[in-house]
Amino acid sequence: MRNLLSITDLSMEEIKELLKEAEYFSKGGIWIPKQQTFAVNMFYEPSTRTKSSFDVAEKKLGIEVIPFDVNFSSVSKGESLYDTVKLFEVIGANITVIRHPKDRYYDSLIGKINIPIINGGDGCGQHPTQSLLDLFTIQQEFGGFKDLQVAIIGDISHSRVARSNKDALSKLGANVVFSGPEEWFDESFLNTGDYVNIDRAVEESDVVMLLRIQNERHHHTSSMSAEEYHLKYGLTLERESRMKRNSIIMHPAPVNRNVEIADELVEAKRSRIFKQMENGVFVRMAVLKQILECGGN
Amino acid sequence: MRNLLSITDLSMEEIKELLKEAEYFSKGGIWIPKQQTFAVNMFYEPSTRTKSSFDVAEKKLGIEVIPFDVNFSSVSKGESLYDTVKLFEVIGANITVIRHPKDRYYDSLIGKINIPIINGGDGCGQHPTQSLLDLFTIQQEFGGFKDLQVAIIGDISHSRVARSNKDALSKLGANVVFSGPEEWFDESFLNTGDYVNIDRAVEESDVVMLLRIQNERHHHTSSMSAEEYHLKYGLTLERESRMKRNSIIMHPAPVNRNVEIADELVEAKRSRIFKQMENGVFVRMAVLKQILECGGN
Amino acid sequence: MRNLLSITDLSMEEIKELLKEAEYFSKGGIWIPKQQTFAVNMFYEPSTRTKSSFDVAEKKLGIEVIPFDVNFSSVSKGESLYDTVKLFEVIGANITVIRHPKDRYYDSLIGKINIPIINGGDGCGQHPTQSLLDLFTIQQEFGGFKDLQVAIIGDISHSRVARSNKDALSKLGANVVFSGPEEWFDESFLNTGDYVNIDRAVEESDVVMLLRIQNERHHHTSSMSAEEYHLKYGLTLERESRMKRNSIIMHPAPVNRNVEIADELVEAKRSRIFKQMENGVFVRMAVLKQILECGGN
Repeated sequence: MRNLLSITDLSMEEIKELLKEAEYFSKGGIWIPKQQTFAVNMFYEPSTRTKSSFDVAEKKLGIEVIPFDVNFSSVSKGESLYDTVKLFEVIGANITVIRHPKDRYYDSLIGKINIPIINGGDGCGQHPTQSLLDLFTIQQEFGGFKDLQVAIIGDISHSRVARSNKDALSKLGANVVFSGPEEWFDESFLNTGDYVNIDRAVEESDVVMLLRIQNERHHHTSSMSAEEYHLKYGLTLERESRMKRNSIIMHPAPVNRNVEIADELVEAKRSRIFKQMENGVFVRMAVLKQILECGGN
Repeated sequence: MRNLLSITDLSMEEIKELLKEAEYFSKGGIWIPKQQTFAVNMFYEPSTRTKSSFDVAEKKLGIEVIPFDVNFSSVSKGESLYDTVKLFEVIGANITVIRHPKDRYYDSLIGKINIPIINGGDGCGQHPTQSLLDLFTIQQEFGGFKDLQVAIIGDISHSRVARSNKDALSKLGANVVFSGPEEWFDESFLNTGDYVNIDRAVEESDVVMLLRIQNERHHHTSSMSAEEYHLKYGLTLERESRMKRNSIIMHPAPVNRNVEIADELVEAKRSRIFKQMENGVFVRMAVLKQILECGGN
Repeated sequence: MRNLLSITDLSMEEIKELLKEAEYFSKGGIWIPKQQTFAVNMFYEPSTRTKSSFDVAEKKLGIEVIPFDVNFSSVSKGESLYDTVKLFEVIGANITVIRHPKDRYYDSLIGKINIPIINGGDGCGQHPTQSLLDLFTIQQEFGGFKDLQVAIIGDISHSRVARSNKDALSKLGANVVFSGPEEWFDESFLNTGDYVNIDRAVEESDVVMLLRIQNERHHHTSSMSAEEYHLKYGLTLERESRMKRNSIIMHPAPVNRNVEIADELVEAKRSRIFKQMENGVFVRMAVLKQILECGGN
């Protein structure tokens, strides 16, 4: 693996290998690059979870992190993404993690940048390490993916997670359905059978994966209050009581409490929301290791 | 010691033990945790002194510091303090330092967060490591606290330091008096005998502890110019000349030069203002060590 | 060497020694201070290149970097530069790098601060490590400076680099000429013979050093569009084709593509623009080493 841009680029073999490595790290496994290694985490959008998770993963692997603050950089003087990444390449970064508001920002970099790139989220595109941590969390729980039903619920169209998870989960043998406000889905999509209503989704699934209402990305929630969303499409206490016995709740966070999910459920027994974050460190360690072993410059 | 939230929570024994450890570190003493340890310094308000002092203390102890920039975090997406601290707990932080504008912000965390919390200042509440460094500086100077007179001068009501220092110093045997603009004190307080006028405070005290006029927190200084404050309640050159022979000047900084204290006095022979900052690193090393030894998760 | 404030302060001997050290580091040479060493990079103006280059140089030397974010520091409470630097001195910084918008900001520090200062750029004044990396890049290319012609082209008056490079290059035996919009030069200067027109400058020089149009510092470009500047004074593809056979292109970056230089030329075969950045790490390692060996407190 040279870069990690999209979960779709990974073969089933590669995914399984990464999950195996993540498990190794989750059990306290250790791996350190042979020589001093520098990473730079270039976040062009605010982030706590993904950025800090990479910070910790890198430090656990003994990697030096070069600080980067987009708001206090030459980006404010108009420097392009390419020029900025190239700069870090030439001053010694061995690997870079990038989050950027533009879909497929990496198209301007691949083939021209000589250090590996890990996509930390591109616009409304992909977020492959989030997908991997979701897969790892599901595997940890159920031992595999075969015949599991996974419901992804919420704002699918603006979600980096929804499409990439659907692809990967299907490839691994799970059955994925979607739910959420009908008006957020294409008419054509509603008739595919992939769309089910919220109550069926909650009752029949092994994994109820809620997505974040991204108020910072769009405004179509304005017609519906938070309370209304919660009652109609959120995981209320009442809906949770109808979930299958061993089913689990997931959410990429940050959570809008009492919107996508009732406050009391965030840390409920069947919630894996904080477990997902914990697992984020292990899958990122796995990705960093695999890329540095094969693609380091 | 599991957390350090308030100096008031500490017994005399605990304070003495911490000061002893601080002395050990001030003399070049070394202590390193047995395994890789992560700290996160979560400052929700600007700070140079306290934050950098913790950064250095942590690095001197070999602790890895996870970067946190509140303005570029998911706090901007509305994530709560609890959810943010919990995130750092699950991704691997072993200890957290928090400064937050809300009084007793930690009430929402204690009992629910499983890593130790060091309070780096809560609203107009406490700032226990500042108190400890003040105590350490006084002990260094006078060998103890018995029968010392300490005058705390300035904006007592908005000061995190005033109340906690008064508590701790009294417990240790010192006599604490307050001074400053009468209109900043409660009528009832003025008659307790704890309030003395500025000239008496300066002339009779072993420690003249000036507080910062916190223009960022309130507006009641608007009726008085900086020059006027300096002449009426500041440590002018003239007042300093009437201080006791071995008495010292303290100030938590940042100093408003020529307001609380004449510019020339900030680094006067009897000033311990920069010594306090230096000592800040040693008391923070002491606190980190004690907490990690006992409370690490 | 105690501080590095200006390239003008360095003797030819000292410059040569620093370039030798830089070469040592460029070939993988290693040097580590004998004890734990702390640096603080205090950037009062945005920077990616210089700041990150120091960050990497420091980490390669095993130096601990104390984070400093001017926008989230007590500078926002009015704390002066002196008080801030003094703070870092007393809490344990062994060396500081400062970039500040004020010309000769260091005049308020020298003689009062006890740790070495490396000037990372002062207002429109000097930027000595940039000069050193320019010198190093030229030496690497041509083996020396004797009889080389160097053209510095662009906004000389607002450039930290122009004057310091002119001084140093002349001292080392090179011949320096300037070019750019006539209206940006003093009438008197135009007649010194140091000013040549852009086409002659490009055709006759061994080093074509372009300067950045600093839109953030002044407005006199408003009378000329970017396209107009490019055609009249920029390095167009056409002009480049008339450059001498082994001549090179330099630019301190960030580059305004298609203004100072045609987009396609930024990574042309004869461009050393990214090489300069790479060399920046090595000269900064050299400076840090020399100062810490002699001047560490």
